Amino acid sequence: MDRIITIGREFGSGGKELARLLSQKLGIAYYDNEIITAIAKKTELAEDYVKQIVEKKPNVFFPVTVGKTLYLGQHQLLWQSNLVYAEQSNIIKEMATKSSCVIVGRCADYILKEFNPYRIFVYADMDARIERCKIKGFQEGELASKAIKKQIIKVDKNRAGYYRFYTGQKWGDRLNYDLCVNTSSADIEKIADLIVKMLQD
Amino acid sequence: MDRIITIGREFGSGGKELARLLSQKLGIAYYDNEIITAIAKKTELAEDYVKQIVEKKPNVFFPVTVGKTLYLGQHQLLWQSNLVYAEQSNIIKEMATKSSCVIVGRCADYILKEFNPYRIFVYADMDARIERCKIKGFQEGELASKAIKKQIIKVDKNRAGYYRFYTGQKWGDRLNYDLCVNTSSADIEKIADLIVKMLQD
Repeated sequence: MDRIITIGREFGSGGKELARLLSQKLGIAYYDNEIITAIAKKTELAEDYVKQIVEKKPNVFFPVTVGKTLYLGQHQLLWQSNLVYAEQSNIIKEMATKSSCVIVGRCADYILKEFNPYRIFVYADMDARIERCKIKGFQEGELASKAIKKQIIKVDKNRAGYYRFYTGQKWGDRLNYDLCVNTSSADIEKIADLIVKMLQD
Repeated sequence: MDRIITIGREFGSGGKELARLLSQKLGIAYYDNEIITAIAKKTELAEDYVKQIVEKKPNVFFPVTVGKTLYLGQHQLLWQSNLVYAEQSNIIKEMATKSSCVIVGRCADYILKEFNPYRIFVYADMDARIERCKIKGFQEGELASKAIKKQIIKVDKNRAGYYRFYTGQKWGDRLNYDLCVNTSSADIEKIADLIVKMLQD
């Protein structure tokens, strides 16, 4: 039977690392940037632009006191965001139909509901996440803890908003996941081994 | 090294079962009603009364328009609740000092912070919890699903209020735990085996 694993993750918590390890250990596909590339191809939008859209809640505020141009601008942004989401859903479903895989983020736990995925959420204390970002040489060079923290909060706020907008659910709410793992003082490789064992038995 | 495991759990999620399995598999103590008995002994309150207190947020509402008797009544209730909490903290710390153990509920994750416990939170979908309650022959005889649901909501509300009152933290908030496990469609024995493996390695 195919096994679909979806991983939601707080920024800096090591969710991507866990996803890669799981795909290696289980010998199944790992989808991350491939999704962006596929969306860009289908929608004819630039990859960087798609990347920006898929982690940000669309702006649904339509000012009534401003001119037509701005109104259309906002409207177009929402339309584009919805288009990207629709394409993303199709692509993620296609990927899950093809074979077992691990998919990070992108509301995959919600989009793939009927595939009965194993839904993991990875999180950590703020200090541990800042530390992880530093080790990873976050954003070409080490940022000060304060700047990293700001970035973590911003990215997670965007992720939460995007998830809420397209799923109607609360991002990180335990009930949307089968397992929530705190990586603050945990060995991610060990966690991966245990999840593999749990899924293989 | 001694290993302290604390288990927070939604009512009907199988948290107690997981706790018992962990204590058996690890060969360490399991504390549940022993804590109540010890509190009752130290405070000279009835066990049933202690049981009622330790899962309910104390009433801190002091009516100013009512007579002295009621005021004192409320005051005494709060005083008793605080006394029980203080005794509970001492007893739980004594138990954790003695040897490795599994402790269910009772803010143990918070009380035992300096023991660096492995903090687990067990939860499940409402339907799965109702089903589990039915199988367990909840409250001497099977209650209708609606009544069980009402009871689940009530108990969890009390647990959340008690936890919030004495720890200042949100009950069930993932950041207060190392692992949050959804038992809706999971085999609790298998989860126990994996946690044991994780802790033993």
